[in-house]
Amino acid sequence: MELKTKLEGLKKFKQNLFGKDFLLTTEKTLDELKYITELAETLKEFHKQGKSFKLFDSGLGISIFRDNSTRTRFSFASAVNATGLGISDLDEVKSQIAHGETVRETANMISFLAEIIGIRDDMYLGEGNKYMREVADAVQEGFEKGVLHRRPNVVNLQCDIDHPTQSLADLGKLKDYFGSFENLKGKKLAMTWAYSPSYGKPLSVPQGIVTLMTRFGMDVTLAYPEGYNLIPELEAKVKNDNPSFKVVNSMEEAFKDADVVYPKSWAPFEVMKERTKLLQNSDKDGLKELEKKCLANNAKYKNWECDETKMKLTKGGEALYMHCLPADITDVSCKEGEVSKEVFEKYRIHTYHEASYKPFVIAAMILSSKFENLESELLKKL
Amino acid sequence: MELKTKLEGLKKFKQNLFGKDFLLTTEKTLDELKYITELAETLKEFHKQGKSFKLFDSGLGISIFRDNSTRTRFSFASAVNATGLGISDLDEVKSQIAHGETVRETANMISFLAEIIGIRDDMYLGEGNKYMREVADAVQEGFEKGVLHRRPNVVNLQCDIDHPTQSLADLGKLKDYFGSFENLKGKKLAMTWAYSPSYGKPLSVPQGIVTLMTRFGMDVTLAYPEGYNLIPELEAKVKNDNPSFKVVNSMEEAFKDADVVYPKSWAPFEVMKERTKLLQNSDKDGLKELEKKCLANNAKYKNWECDETKMKLTKGGEALYMHCLPADITDVSCKEGEVSKEVFEKYRIHTYHEASYKPFVIAAMILSSKFENLESELLKKL
Amino acid sequence: MELKTKLEGLKKFKQNLFGKDFLLTTEKTLDELKYITELAETLKEFHKQGKSFKLFDSGLGISIFRDNSTRTRFSFASAVNATGLGISDLDEVKSQIAHGETVRETANMISFLAEIIGIRDDMYLGEGNKYMREVADAVQEGFEKGVLHRRPNVVNLQCDIDHPTQSLADLGKLKDYFGSFENLKGKKLAMTWAYSPSYGKPLSVPQGIVTLMTRFGMDVTLAYPEGYNLIPELEAKVKNDNPSFKVVNSMEEAFKDADVVYPKSWAPFEVMKERTKLLQNSDKDGLKELEKKCLANNAKYKNWECDETKMKLTKGGEALYMHCLPADITDVSCKEGEVSKEVFEKYRIHTYHEASYKPFVIAAMILSSKFENLESELLKKL
Repeated sequence: MELKTKLEGLKKFKQNLFGKDFLLTTEKTLDELKYITELAETLKEFHKQGKSFKLFDSGLGISIFRDNSTRTRFSFASAVNATGLGISDLDEVKSQIAHGETVRETANMISFLAEIIGIRDDMYLGEGNKYMREVADAVQEGFEKGVLHRRPNVVNLQCDIDHPTQSLADLGKLKDYFGSFENLKGKKLAMTWAYSPSYGKPLSVPQGIVTLMTRFGMDVTLAYPEGYNLIPELEAKVKNDNPSFKVVNSMEEAFKDADVVYPKSWAPFEVMKERTKLLQNSDKDGLKELEKKCLANNAKYKNWECDETKMKLTKGGEALYMHCLPADITDVSCKEGEVSKEVFEKYRIHTYHEASYKPFVIAAMILSSKFENLESELLKKL
Repeated sequence: MELKTKLEGLKKFKQNLFGKDFLLTTEKTLDELKYITELAETLKEFHKQGKSFKLFDSGLGISIFRDNSTRTRFSFASAVNATGLGISDLDEVKSQIAHGETVRETANMISFLAEIIGIRDDMYLGEGNKYMREVADAVQEGFEKGVLHRRPNVVNLQCDIDHPTQSLADLGKLKDYFGSFENLKGKKLAMTWAYSPSYGKPLSVPQGIVTLMTRFGMDVTLAYPEGYNLIPELEAKVKNDNPSFKVVNSMEEAFKDADVVYPKSWAPFEVMKERTKLLQNSDKDGLKELEKKCLANNAKYKNWECDETKMKLTKGGEALYMHCLPADITDVSCKEGEVSKEVFEKYRIHTYHEASYKPFVIAAMILSSKFENLESELLKKL
Repeated sequence: MELKTKLEGLKKFKQNLFGKDFLLTTEKTLDELKYITELAETLKEFHKQGKSFKLFDSGLGISIFRDNSTRTRFSFASAVNATGLGISDLDEVKSQIAHGETVRETANMISFLAEIIGIRDDMYLGEGNKYMREVADAVQEGFEKGVLHRRPNVVNLQCDIDHPTQSLADLGKLKDYFGSFENLKGKKLAMTWAYSPSYGKPLSVPQGIVTLMTRFGMDVTLAYPEGYNLIPELEAKVKNDNPSFKVVNSMEEAFKDADVVYPKSWAPFEVMKERTKLLQNSDKDGLKELEKKCLANNAKYKNWECDETKMKLTKGGEALYMHCLPADITDVSCKEGEVSKEVFEKYRIHTYHEASYKPFVIAAMILSSKFENLESELLKKL
């Protein structure tokens, strides 16, 4: 499709993203989520054709990573650069839980010439998304009181609840794979826990996937070993809103007839809660003890591996395998992991392609929050 | 005021900033300091109106931080980005005292495509400003000998003597608060020591404030507990040049009828001297011992807190409270600190606004040192 | 010479650099090496005249430094900025040897909006250049499979075999010093080991120099104490291709009648091989043991210092002294080093000038690999 047509097509969506933060997909309307996804597609096409979507003259895009990250960091840096901003990383707050005046003041001090603030804070249950809101409130106050000339918008680069840049990149991949949003309806997606030789992986990816994909009419099954549940209220809400949503305790059951499988390790909600408390108290012995206990528990579920036998259970044995990467691949990155070498290799390029949507999703979030007449601005770049 | 009028107005100042470093406010004429302040105001207005003052096509702005910093680092990064340069941080020299060939060579090696070098080096008495001059001399030689095509200018982002980007941001705030440079004359400013549960804070802020604000006709009183003096020669010079300048040993006395109060902790000159020696010798035990001794001494002066009672002593009980941030706020960031929660909260937005001048002051320093016909260049951007 | 004439002159070289990586000078034709050198000269002249060669609108230049670096890091950052890209540093892989899926995946994950990838990996014999090829293969696959819209090119910023950005900067200096490529023919260059109080310096500089300069007709003598040889196959190849190439075990012999001397410390090939094994096994005790042994062995050759007496042996006593910097200078940066204070001071500015070619060589590598009609694009900037 021509870029011009694509841009014109974006106008059909009713959306109110200008001036808004992007903190949870659940706070956005279906039209807004479609808009971001199609805008990301369009920006991807701009890039493919060697066309620029640099709309800022200058200004900073600030990243705050309170957890290590390579993929999301580079996706954010790429998006920030492509839109015309300069990247600046605030690294002082890594692995601290800061609140109150410290957050309020720092947020303003770094924002005098900032346009966007991307935050990753996924370590502490009940804290990550809250921290993003504190930052957003602080710059809102700074803006209202005349300290900031413009109000930088906050983009959630992964928190304790959601990972919207990932789940929307995944949505972009699914739309491309199945052809349209419409075609996603009724497709069966298995979001399942998988064994990994590490512990403490955040809940945000599975939570983000089940909340988002059910809204697009997918038939989602969440599977995990007993005790490995997500945030209970979140699971309950998804179930309440989507009668077709199922939670099961068997990988095989979830894979049965699935069109898409997303096998990925995470730590049980109860463990994350306990871990958060231990991290807050800097209880190193407690953390070591918890890790030992969890790894031992995980080890009971080594058969939760996505292998060729389980893949045969899926629709025609040919379900799409998805992963947010990096995956723990048996005999490649570890002895026993989330996925067998054969399955991963078969879908490897698919997972790379899935990831390729992320920088453009972030760019779409940045541009839609900062330019009121975005389509017109982008048309000028053609 | 219109931007065009503001730019035209800048021409009234006699200034010789092109091609020069900015190392101490005392080396600049009053007209030059006014020029920087009003240029910063103008650039702030550019930004507020969404107008660009990006004058460089490319080139590097290099930062050398030999002490941790968030606020100044972001201010410098913001200014560098807004003027069109890319930021590059030289972090190898952190907390080393380097001299001679190492400085000379490194300064040239990083400068082949550099336009500006911002340096923060405030830990060592007698060393910070000296280091900046070594860097400046090195790139001057490199330029003269044809190694560098252009001579990058050095901006002092805080040294052992002065903190010009802070004091000029403060001057911008004061001008805005009182309406004009003229109105500053005769206004009483209390630059006072305040208690903090830490030690070793640099002397550059109080030194920068008393040297700069006296030159603008302010009636400055410097207050500190006995023994907490600044560099003796600097105090003597300010006193000699300004008969109205007073040094007292009572916070209350300084606050009396003050129009502006600036209560802030610092380490006594003698302690900084001793600390410099210990740091140079990497004497960890000595440093621990010194810290212990100092904290004990500080503790005698916990009543040097800016609270509501002391604020009542000021002009109409309504003096402007200033701080370079972050402040040690009692019951907020520490148990007992420089300022009470109530006083800080009342002036919190004022302190943020004060800080908002800094990136524009730095941008003003960069642009005035690099563009001979700056006003004309900026007029083209309107 | 006029820039336009210089740009037209570049067309005389037959070259096929577009879309190619730059991993070894030995893989490039003489015309291609001349092209890079003259293009670098031209870009240097652009910069000197204040003319921009910013050809990218946006995009990332990614650096991967698996060893500390200041000079090359700044050269790369400068070049990336000057061509219009934003710099992004992947620092997760420092001092790890990664292979297979980790490299393949990471290379793609960071490259969605990347145009160039600069890699320094010089610690491990047999690994550095291999790693670069793995990255190149990975992005090639990503490009072919549609994951990447464009294929970022890889630039070798120093590996275990070669240091092309250094040797080509050195070539630029030599061309400037002697007037033309033609004039290099028959000039005698002494690439010699020199004593340093450290150990483990890479072999890439001497290897890069002897392979490159012999191809330009220079009469190269390599000198080192017995046992301090370079990669044996590489030495043999250079000898085979260039009958005039000599290896001797005396600094004095190499200096005799030399037009150019390049005295520089390195670790013996055998030591580097052993060290690689120890590093791969994280054998700290073994590494300490090896260092001790090597430093003791080095100490036998403290007379391998480039001093005034030895310089008198060179052509007219006035050979050009070269160094990639930083040099270990006796009585300046160490007690006993590679070069005496007097010799270094005499040629200090020459070594700075030599280094000044590097950012422009890197810019030349970037631009020639990314723009098919580069001369036309650059002509538009005049």
